[in-house]
Amino acid sequence: MNNYQVECIGHVHSPLRERAAAPKQGFEGSPPATIVFAAAYSEALADLKVGDEIIILTWLDRAKRDVLRVHPRGDTGIPVTGVFSTRSPDRPNPIGLHRVKIEAILDPLQIQVCDLEALDRTPVIDVKPVLKRSADA
Amino acid sequence: MNNYQVECIGHVHSPLRERAAAPKQGFEGSPPATIVFAAAYSEALADLKVGDEIIILTWLDRAKRDVLRVHPRGDTGIPVTGVFSTRSPDRPNPIGLHRVKIEAILDPLQIQVCDLEALDRTPVIDVKPVLKRSADA
Repeated sequence: MNNYQVECIGHVHSPLRERAAAPKQGFEGSPPATIVFAAAYSEALADLKVGDEIIILTWLDRAKRDVLRVHPRGDTGIPVTGVFSTRSPDRPNPIGLHRVKIEAILDPLQIQVCDLEALDRTPVIDVKPVLKRSADA
Repeated sequence: MNNYQVECIGHVHSPLRERAAAPKQGFEGSPPATIVFAAAYSEALADLKVGDEIIILTWLDRAKRDVLRVHPRGDTGIPVTGVFSTRSPDRPNPIGLHRVKIEAILDPLQIQVCDLEALDRTPVIDVKPVLKRSADA
């Protein structure tokens, strides 16, 4: 009753291949990335448009799930902090939350986005619109 | 290789018991809610503070996972829309994204928050800080 199965709905294609090379946050200089979705989800994607600001949720499959405290940003000069007060990929459920903008729709199953710091081949698990309220999520 | 197990790290305690009674978004008049975490995660929680703005990710266990298009907000006057352009709880991976503020820390495993529209007993799967960049997520 305490475990749920997440489906992979697509994957990130990015020039970022190693964690050490990736920016800590997407807005810190990530290269453009493409998200390739599985055909089963085409109807769910059909209303995404160029210029939309969206939240991508990913499954950070190269993260460690047994880490509860980290030095934020990997900086040993910052005291260890509980992971729920950080954006560390290492956490019990390694879900990445990325706010990005759709730069292009390459075909019905492929979108190009900017500001995505996820590594190449990272599984994508959800896409949500940014709400207008206050540019928040 | 395409499925991942999410762990439940805690639960929502809320007076909201039915989907029909819940606001569509947290900022549309949700009552205060308490999140009760499992003891295993106490170290990960230790640095949360009253006043922190956080993102709670939940597993919307009463949602339908086979829905790809919906009338946004359940309003049949709005054309059907792909779920990835909506915040519908019905979606392939029913992950809820809630931006809330910590109102009180009741004990090391219980926090009280405002603006959470999740139903009573909804599983919690992650907590992340709101980044300062632009009050975004």
